[in-house]
Amino acid sequence: MNRQIVLNERPVGFPTADTWHLLEVPEKKLREGEVNVKNIYASIDPTMRGWVSERKSYLPPVEIGAVMRALTVGEVVSTKHPGFQVGDYVHGPGGIQDFSISNGEIWRKIESTSIPLEKYLSILGMTGLTAYFGLLDIGKPKEGETILVSGAGGAVGSIVGQIGKIMGCRMVGIAGGAEKCKRLISHYGYDAAIDYKSENVWSALKKTCPEGIDIYFDNVGGEVLDMALAKLKLKGRIVLCGAISQYNADKNQGPANYMSLVINRGRMEGFLVMDYAKEYRKAATEIAGWMREGKLISDEHIEIGIENFFPAFQKLFTGNKRGKLILQINPPTS
Amino acid sequence: MNRQIVLNERPVGFPTADTWHLLEVPEKKLREGEVNVKNIYASIDPTMRGWVSERKSYLPPVEIGAVMRALTVGEVVSTKHPGFQVGDYVHGPGGIQDFSISNGEIWRKIESTSIPLEKYLSILGMTGLTAYFGLLDIGKPKEGETILVSGAGGAVGSIVGQIGKIMGCRMVGIAGGAEKCKRLISHYGYDAAIDYKSENVWSALKKTCPEGIDIYFDNVGGEVLDMALAKLKLKGRIVLCGAISQYNADKNQGPANYMSLVINRGRMEGFLVMDYAKEYRKAATEIAGWMREGKLISDEHIEIGIENFFPAFQKLFTGNKRGKLILQINPPTS
Repeated sequence: MNRQIVLNERPVGFPTADTWHLLEVPEKKLREGEVNVKNIYASIDPTMRGWVSERKSYLPPVEIGAVMRALTVGEVVSTKHPGFQVGDYVHGPGGIQDFSISNGEIWRKIESTSIPLEKYLSILGMTGLTAYFGLLDIGKPKEGETILVSGAGGAVGSIVGQIGKIMGCRMVGIAGGAEKCKRLISHYGYDAAIDYKSENVWSALKKTCPEGIDIYFDNVGGEVLDMALAKLKLKGRIVLCGAISQYNADKNQGPANYMSLVINRGRMEGFLVMDYAKEYRKAATEIAGWMREGKLISDEHIEIGIENFFPAFQKLFTGNKRGKLILQINPPTS
Repeated sequence: MNRQIVLNERPVGFPTADTWHLLEVPEKKLREGEVNVKNIYASIDPTMRGWVSERKSYLPPVEIGAVMRALTVGEVVSTKHPGFQVGDYVHGPGGIQDFSISNGEIWRKIESTSIPLEKYLSILGMTGLTAYFGLLDIGKPKEGETILVSGAGGAVGSIVGQIGKIMGCRMVGIAGGAEKCKRLISHYGYDAAIDYKSENVWSALKKTCPEGIDIYFDNVGGEVLDMALAKLKLKGRIVLCGAISQYNADKNQGPANYMSLVINRGRMEGFLVMDYAKEYRKAATEIAGWMREGKLISDEHIEIGIENFFPAFQKLFTGNKRGKLILQINPPTS
């Protein structure tokens, strides 16, 4: 049997336990040219909220009744495809299900097995590449600049902080809770941390960024985006990397201070890591190099069991996690 | 005597007749190294609203009791400065007053007298340069792209439309009233016009830009910005050139659809023409060339008399004008 998490209905506001349901379907027969991958880990990401909305986005919506879209790493368990062998490890959009049968086009092979598999869904996957291209290509940091990051303890934010330090910038992170904030500094090398749960963010911003902000790497949207606009320096840049505070809102809140972009000749730009596909390999090589040199670390928070997909998804928004959220669908063999 | 328009109080919301008052002061004596310019024309611009606000902007606020800041063209009437001769024509920030005495640093000389003086405050002044650098350097239009312009019949918008056509783009303009819209097409070469006073702008946008918008040149902000975001094409650009609908609002309305910048990998960027000072001469030469070739025209709306400063300023926002608003402070000699 193949267990699958299937979209049940389009959520209004925050998804509920009824948004998805668990289905068991008989395993399909493998046809000529196909490969069957057992999914081991699945990446759980805020963008999944957008995928189940009807509105226009960068990918078509997940259909009602379809398997929930997700990036996974998995292992080939049977194959009628000349390019794959049983035991090969792969990563790609396998979906939240035990087994993905496909013509193989969705998969990329994992060459090295010295790196833990889950890292291919975090620092060596979309998360790491999002931090890399968002900060370097959209933000274009210069040595000595001050960079503010929201969601700084999160999967992307923790990597942005470290890459910013590698570039010689002063890094200020916003996160929720004293422990997370401590960790920003001790673990990810941030120069200063703002605890949005116990501090007045605006006062803290004025204190930690007295001369303003050169780059704001926005993982949350909402009020913090407005504050960052208000503190933007001349020629400041705002990197829009999703906006967690907005995903579940029926009516988005626009940044009232956007006119700061005129006054300060600022730039606010969105990006999607998918657009950089041609540069993935080069970027991953650089990231792996920084990892080897000990300049870049990543943490993964692994939840166990396909039946726990929804509680895992909820943790994206409650902040009750440490590192990149990953769902273990099946235990790794070996 | 020197008549001056002086800032009386900081307006809350839209300025009133009490925001400024007319003062007559004795003419100052000219000291060694100074030059006295009689102001002929003054440029009346939406950005003046920002200059009288207390809040941080790209220039310090005009102080209460100070002469209202304005770009002017004028004529040297007396001089103790070796660089100026009586009869020289100059342009610079002379302010709303009959006579400006200064050390000369604020002035640039007007070399050619074959071009009407008022053009140095419109197409050959900040207005033309704003259209030029905003569209070309921030918008970066490519041949065949669709460009939407709000305030399309205004001083900047009418020039943006013509430069866009020179670049081979499809130009769609938004303006208020059937006559203005007709003029967009017949006079400024727009391909299509939307009358925001009589049409549903959203429906008209869908009709005139069925495949979306590559560049939105935003002169007004507010709802139209949100609609443009909703119709933005992949890699679309939004040029923020002030936002007339927002200048007088106590609380700005932020663009709720800004997440379109993520979905479409879009860019929203502000600019100030002042930042391009080094390139003014080159740009003005190109603009003058297009004027000579008959590809680029400009219209000026001249109001007469320093005492009419406030009614002239009001016309910026009521739309009751045709072309660049200019106040004649003193009649040109000749």
